[in-house]
Amino acid sequence: MPAGRPPFPFQIVIELPAWLGRFEFAPAYRNAEEKMRLAVVLARRNVEEGTGGPFGAAVFERATGALVAPGVNLVVPSHAATAHAEIVALTLAGQTAGTHDLSELDCELVTTVEPCAMCLGAVPWSGVGRLVCGAREEDARAIGFDEGSKPADWPAALESRRIDVVRDVLREEATAVLRDYQAAGGPIYNPRR
Amino acid sequence: MPAGRPPFPFQIVIELPAWLGRFEFAPAYRNAEEKMRLAVVLARRNVEEGTGGPFGAAVFERATGALVAPGVNLVVPSHAATAHAEIVALTLAGQTAGTHDLSELDCELVTTVEPCAMCLGAVPWSGVGRLVCGAREEDARAIGFDEGSKPADWPAALESRRIDVVRDVLREEATAVLRDYQAAGGPIYNPRR
Repeated sequence: MPAGRPPFPFQIVIELPAWLGRFEFAPAYRNAEEKMRLAVVLARRNVEEGTGGPFGAAVFERATGALVAPGVNLVVPSHAATAHAEIVALTLAGQTAGTHDLSELDCELVTTVEPCAMCLGAVPWSGVGRLVCGAREEDARAIGFDEGSKPADWPAALESRRIDVVRDVLREEATAVLRDYQAAGGPIYNPRR
Repeated sequence: MPAGRPPFPFQIVIELPAWLGRFEFAPAYRNAEEKMRLAVVLARRNVEEGTGGPFGAAVFERATGALVAPGVNLVVPSHAATAHAEIVALTLAGQTAGTHDLSELDCELVTTVEPCAMCLGAVPWSGVGRLVCGAREEDARAIGFDEGSKPADWPAALESRRIDVVRDVLREEATAVLRDYQAAGGPIYNPRR
């Protein structure tokens, strides 16, 4: 590399899959099950379209139930180990809202699988007030995905930061996406190290 | 929000600051101190230019010492709670290398401050084989930054994944950036929740 001519691009770009641009979103999602159903549909569609891993997420405004931003796992296609569904949804939500702090809107994050160590760490920084989870982390581990080193009682750690945690919402439906992904031979993309 | 017309953008874009495009990088960085010195310079410059928080990072190829990608904290300007220096460097490195798995290149992450819970969680996913830290997390806490809930012995947790951890490299220089940021009244941008 010659001095002064850095070879890296000057922006990070993570493109949402084209099918998301044609997706028919509802004006509002009324309860945790409706919100989770959307996230599960996104996760399943992401697998069917071959645009990433079997994980979906979405950020909603709590007062209205309006979608702020969706997220799907884009690790492999976007060449970004950090592009988990939750990171995508939280980052896109901030950029949509024009602030790094979603507490200004009173939002919640809904995710089809309990967050890995990275995504769990992102939750307090995002300013969301509630985390809603579908499948348990052991459901992801069961098909070979690594969840990382998390605090033993991570729901309590979030609650101590005044972030509500709701678990097992449509757990079976969310887990079915994982199982179908595995059955179809989808890549488990943990780094080879 | 009318159904079918989502109001969110269809890509996440995190722009590096313009000054980084004019920065003179060396062809190679020979040891941990040289690599950390670059990260500290980036952190300080990020504050001086008003383009983000007092944190810098960089990913290097271990065999050659070549820079793969730099990172600075861009949380506030990019409206992204996730845009910590380490996440920026790791994500940009993957996109530069064209792979989500940096173990293909044998890389290391150098960061001016020990990673928060989110960035720590990202390290194993990135495929880097070594983490080099400057300031301690208590140095960041001392000026008001929250580091999140991390495993008690997080260096051991990384080592158990065959990721080497080196601490206290130019700790004083890295901490001075934090102190100067605080003295200048720089925003501590934890979410208000």
